Amino acid sequence: MNKYAVIVAGGSGIRMNSSVPKQFLLLKNKPVLYYTLQAFLQSYADMKIILVLPEEHIAIGQEIIDAYFDYDRIRITIGGRTRFHSVQNGLKLVDEESIVLVHDAVRCLVDVDLIYRCYEAALEFGAAIPAIASKDSVRLVTEEGNEAVERRNVRLIQTPQAFLSTVLIPAYNIDYKDKFTDEATVAEAFGMKMKLVEGNENNIKITLPPDIIYAEYILDSRS
Amino acid sequence: MNKYAVIVAGGSGIRMNSSVPKQFLLLKNKPVLYYTLQAFLQSYADMKIILVLPEEHIAIGQEIIDAYFDYDRIRITIGGRTRFHSVQNGLKLVDEESIVLVHDAVRCLVDVDLIYRCYEAALEFGAAIPAIASKDSVRLVTEEGNEAVERRNVRLIQTPQAFLSTVLIPAYNIDYKDKFTDEATVAEAFGMKMKLVEGNENNIKITLPPDIIYAEYILDSRS
Repeated sequence: MNKYAVIVAGGSGIRMNSSVPKQFLLLKNKPVLYYTLQAFLQSYADMKIILVLPEEHIAIGQEIIDAYFDYDRIRITIGGRTRFHSVQNGLKLVDEESIVLVHDAVRCLVDVDLIYRCYEAALEFGAAIPAIASKDSVRLVTEEGNEAVERRNVRLIQTPQAFLSTVLIPAYNIDYKDKFTDEATVAEAFGMKMKLVEGNENNIKITLPPDIIYAEYILDSRS
Repeated sequence: MNKYAVIVAGGSGIRMNSSVPKQFLLLKNKPVLYYTLQAFLQSYADMKIILVLPEEHIAIGQEIIDAYFDYDRIRITIGGRTRFHSVQNGLKLVDEESIVLVHDAVRCLVDVDLIYRCYEAALEFGAAIPAIASKDSVRLVTEEGNEAVERRNVRLIQTPQAFLSTVLIPAYNIDYKDKFTDEATVAEAFGMKMKLVEGNENNIKITLPPDIIYAEYILDSRS
């Protein structure tokens, strides 16, 4: 089956006390985005990447690709107003039946085993997303206040979120809704069931300065 | 108002690839538990601490207290089969009307501002727990599969969880149930409403080796 990774970057870098968007921050002297792209390129020899960046970051994204990678397997396109619109733009470049893995650019600690699990489960079930247990208790804010949910039933959802293109592309013809916080919610609105696969606790989003330290430790422990 | 912190440690250290329980691992050459105790001692001059440890760890807990602290403000007691039973044991040492703050020993990055927020809200509302937004999408496992919950309504719950002793102590007369994963669920079963206060993203549980690196970074950035 053909394989596409749609890697989505947004973010302004404000939370990092930095004017550098998080995907361009340096981890062991290479940008966060380098590690994300590298994981997908290494996963399958025929994995093609569609990198979705805000318009103002296209040039730096292109520089990173030119510096580190085989350009033939990576294309860049411009992001939209929300993550939903960015993914919608990325999907326009998927022009053959495939498994599409949508991934957060700032989850740079994704490893090939996780990519394999998502790909294989999507091939079998049509839609697969990585999930981990929550270390914290979880509550829902309600009109009356808040209520506990049973922690054993809670799953925190990561990316890559993997789908058959024949499902995901038509699903994205829907009008945008606020509740579309990830691809799973969009595919679900289209009637798909999500298969949960085991995520990876290290597969964090780089959003706060100490996350960089955490990520460098993980990268060091792998090499 | 009198003030008690019930600091609960369990855990076998298995996840850390270590025979050392997580609360005794070293951060900048001092045990995790040192930082947890220190935060509560520093918060209020009249804060008393009840440290609940598994029986086999009482001796090392005592050594840490003797090495670093004013013993008069800290007492140790033996933990139970579950967290519920450990807290129940700890509460037996609360012998005056007070605000009781129950805290995970391995959340050693708790800071005094968070302790103040929880204490003050518990004084006003009877029960207060720290909450943060989730960076990940969240799903609930159901009998039919799984379903998304609206992320804007999700809160991840931390500790300290703070209560009026006149509510928490009678609440703990209840029989244990599996769903009692934290003190809030016990107090809620007793009819209490939880006030959510703003948590702190750094207030993590130390459970995996890279968490140590993360914690050292936070401690360095404070000093």
